[in-house]
Amino acid sequence: MVVTDPDILGAYRQDRAFDPAAGTALALVRPTTTAQVSAVVRWAHEHRVPIVPRGAGTGLSGGSTAQHGALVLSTEKLRDISVDTVTRTAVVQPGLLNAEVKRAVAEHGLWYPPDPSSFEICSIGGNAATNAGGLCCVKYGVTTDYVLGMEVVLADGTAVRLGGPRLKDAAGLSLTKLFVGSEGTLGIITELTLRLLPAQPPQSTVVATFPTLTAATDAILAITGALRPSMLEFMDSVAINAVEDELRMGLDREAAGLLVARSDAPGEHAGYEADIMLAACEKAGATEAFRTDDEEEGEAFCAARRFAIPAVERKGPLLLEDVGVPLPRLGDLVNGIAEIARHRAVLISVIAHAGDGNTHPLIVHDPNNPDESERAHLAFGEIMDLAISLGGTITGEHGVGRLKKAWLPDQVGPDVMALTRTIKNALDPHGILNPGAVL
Amino acid sequence: MVVTDPDILGAYRQDRAFDPAAGTALALVRPTTTAQVSAVVRWAHEHRVPIVPRGAGTGLSGGSTAQHGALVLSTEKLRDISVDTVTRTAVVQPGLLNAEVKRAVAEHGLWYPPDPSSFEICSIGGNAATNAGGLCCVKYGVTTDYVLGMEVVLADGTAVRLGGPRLKDAAGLSLTKLFVGSEGTLGIITELTLRLLPAQPPQSTVVATFPTLTAATDAILAITGALRPSMLEFMDSVAINAVEDELRMGLDREAAGLLVARSDAPGEHAGYEADIMLAACEKAGATEAFRTDDEEEGEAFCAARRFAIPAVERKGPLLLEDVGVPLPRLGDLVNGIAEIARHRAVLISVIAHAGDGNTHPLIVHDPNNPDESERAHLAFGEIMDLAISLGGTITGEHGVGRLKKAWLPDQVGPDVMALTRTIKNALDPHGILNPGAVL
Ligand SMILES: Cc1cc2nc3c(=O)[nH]c(=O)nc-3n(C[C@H](O)[C@H](O)[C@H](O)COP(=O)(O)OP(=O)(O)OC[C@H]3O[C@@H](n4cnc5c(N)ncnc54)[C@H](O)[C@@H]3O)c2cc1C
Ligand SMILES: Cc1cc2nc3c(=O)[nH]c(=O)nc-3n(C[C@H](O)[C@H](O)[C@H](O)COP(=O)(O)OP(=O)(O)OC[C@H]3O[C@@H](n4cnc5c(N)ncnc54)[C@H](O)[C@@H]3O)c2cc1C
Repeated sequence: MVVTDPDILGAYRQDRAFDPAAGTALALVRPTTTAQVSAVVRWAHEHRVPIVPRGAGTGLSGGSTAQHGALVLSTEKLRDISVDTVTRTAVVQPGLLNAEVKRAVAEHGLWYPPDPSSFEICSIGGNAATNAGGLCCVKYGVTTDYVLGMEVVLADGTAVRLGGPRLKDAAGLSLTKLFVGSEGTLGIITELTLRLLPAQPPQSTVVATFPTLTAATDAILAITGALRPSMLEFMDSVAINAVEDELRMGLDREAAGLLVARSDAPGEHAGYEADIMLAACEKAGATEAFRTDDEEEGEAFCAARRFAIPAVERKGPLLLEDVGVPLPRLGDLVNGIAEIARHRAVLISVIAHAGDGNTHPLIVHDPNNPDESERAHLAFGEIMDLAISLGGTITGEHGVGRLKKAWLPDQVGPDVMALTRTIKNALDPHGILNPGAVL
Repeated sequence: MVVTDPDILGAYRQDRAFDPAAGTALALVRPTTTAQVSAVVRWAHEHRVPIVPRGAGTGLSGGSTAQHGALVLSTEKLRDISVDTVTRTAVVQPGLLNAEVKRAVAEHGLWYPPDPSSFEICSIGGNAATNAGGLCCVKYGVTTDYVLGMEVVLADGTAVRLGGPRLKDAAGLSLTKLFVGSEGTLGIITELTLRLLPAQPPQSTVVATFPTLTAATDAILAITGALRPSMLEFMDSVAINAVEDELRMGLDREAAGLLVARSDAPGEHAGYEADIMLAACEKAGATEAFRTDDEEEGEAFCAARRFAIPAVERKGPLLLEDVGVPLPRLGDLVNGIAEIARHRAVLISVIAHAGDGNTHPLIVHDPNNPDESERAHLAFGEIMDLAISLGGTITGEHGVGRLKKAWLPDQVGPDVMALTRTIKNALDPHGILNPGAVL
């Protein structure tokens, strides 16, 4: 269970934020049972040894970055799952990948909606710890909306069970919800009870390209004002071209922006809704817009959108943002980001879960060029400042981790920081759980 | 703002649990601004005076029962609302009734789903404080699913803002969710940011009566296994007759149970789904079952179901349960309750938000008959014990309050109680916020 081989430890040093300042852990532990997790945490608690909980390490905010002298506790060997078709719930261990959960429940005709773009490589435990979002959130909500219960190991090693397979439960404080999104700072999630839905109906898909960013944001507001799409995703010109470079699917390289919008309304209503979205795109000035009811073709455009981050990454290492704003401010955000890119002379590509105002500005930079790297980091901070000034958030779904914690007080203010610290200190008095993350 | 007139105080002594042991408050305060709430709480904090937060006093678990020497803080004068159609959110003060919020947003073509049966008389702040459920939860979730942000006054009088009008926000701990359902023990909610949906489509309604409880629970499982109804409500024979006594709408007095099931799928799909539910009822052995697409007729049956509690109450004062179980155990629960009623020789009527396994056994008793009253209270505890033994909850939606707190440790266990106490003590070190509730 305990690994100290430096080569193996090296593979657990960073997450996808690739923090160069990552430390070297004391050891890696890969427990296979909750009892083992408890034993490790109890030992760490007694000896005041910090623990960095780790799922699949796909996080983008440095939440599972290894720390000097800490244990890295990986959940990768906790992989059980059972599905209950009558209550439409699944009991899963944290180390399963999101895609594995989706597949296992699909075998029973059921659907676990949350779908981060990374669904094939991120763990369900990491999803719960970050309250992960994704593409279907605009209609189906985020991870917390699907977590009915959990088993979590507290800072002193005690394993507690919260909630359960009940759609409604008002007994006591909403503790399950507190642990969702706590980024490993309050406890280690060792089991989740997930709410499932019947299989998603077939979707109709609309793809539209726009000559200006304003036209695209107009279309977004028109669509969300008219109905609830099951997906509403955006890519800017840089992302379109980066994806087209790799996938060669005939995307319009001249467009300023591209939208992928879907409806999963039952039967022919998906088509009706798609037509409404199509008309909204055309009215907003789309250069091209079409609807397809072919699942495979629709899925290809979603895959293209999901591929945008890796595609842009081929241009150079990314500083990856996750800022969100109330929908009407989306245009201000997108234009403000373009202004920052110009001012700092860096390439910033914007992709977005547009329907819920959550954008991922991707700042391309060469870490070996100190001047460019500095400008990129300045832009990184300025984009968060901009989001805060627009009434938005520094992170819609990736979490604060270590990368964004300097901006958290600016967003939430000193009183909420104090409240957060009060809860953290009460639940983890020796600060052994993921120290340096969030706070 | 401060009232000490004993006649007025008398009206604020109890909630709908009518706890005879209610105390007499020191005074009633009815602040009109958050600043006033802060000032009251700061004063109470300094002088160690307990505060009982109170919405509309419709609670069924004694959560707003007045305590000797405490201040009752009523939110009834905090009544502002503003609706934003673009972000589909409303910012509301806690004193508005649920029905007032529904009406205000409906004027903009929007819908606030949570619909406790008491929606015309309970406050939206009380709904958030109890994480209220209702009839549409089976498809649309409970109050916490609609609370995006809040302003809350903490135990020392500090007002903090949590979350906001963003569908996705992963910045920091999930504090908003922690305060939802905290029953006034962690802070006083002074503002809520609520997520809204487009107006609900017209519903098709199925009404079916059954010769046995088993037939009714079979139908429930068949329906929820096939689709997601927008409502699935149950009344037993006592409730049917009590409602029929008052409303004279021609309900079948011979039936052992009645189901009201609805679908709000778009267009003719509501009818398709209703037909599936109709067939499920018939197959399970319904004596009578019919479908109506007439909104008014459908609504009449829902109103009848909502009227069940007051109707049964005319037979005598009620001890009102709120136990829930995982859906497959519903039959065991209903049969077990019948057994308890026989054994204790008391009348227990069962109504239920059947689709999510949440039942309201109504124990009729005469408080002036000490023997019957004792048997009723024994049955009250036995029903909670039964629910716990079936993997269920002592409260699906009404909260623990003061009435059910003796059973909370049996449900959640000593470690979760300790965790709850740790959070309570950290946030309210002098224990001034609703002391004696939940813990
Ligand atoms: C290409 C790409 C696309 C992405 N797209 C999305 C997207 O659309 N939406 C989205 O939300 N995210 C996205 N992400 C980010 C990432 O995949 C998510 O944050 C994911 O939830 C992290 O899961 P993980 O298993 O990799 O967790 P890790 O990165 O290992 O850990 C994330 C955090 O959770 C903690 N943690 C992990 N497991 C546990 C546990 N069992 N108990 C307690 N704490 C734990 C860690 O300490 C850390 O703080 C993307 C990432 C990539 C690389
Ligand atoms: C006939 C009838 C039917 C009902 N049906 C349902 C139903 O279907 N579903 C359901 O969930 N409930 C139902 N209820 C119960 C009740 O209406 C709900 O619990 C409701 O949410 C209570 O709201 P209230 O404003 O009356 O709160 P109160 O009874 O005044 O208070 C409830 C609790 O919340 C706290 N509180 C109130 N306001 C605040 C605030 N602003 N900040 C902090 N704490 C606060 C109080 O201290 C107390 O602990 C029903 C009640 C009746 C009488």
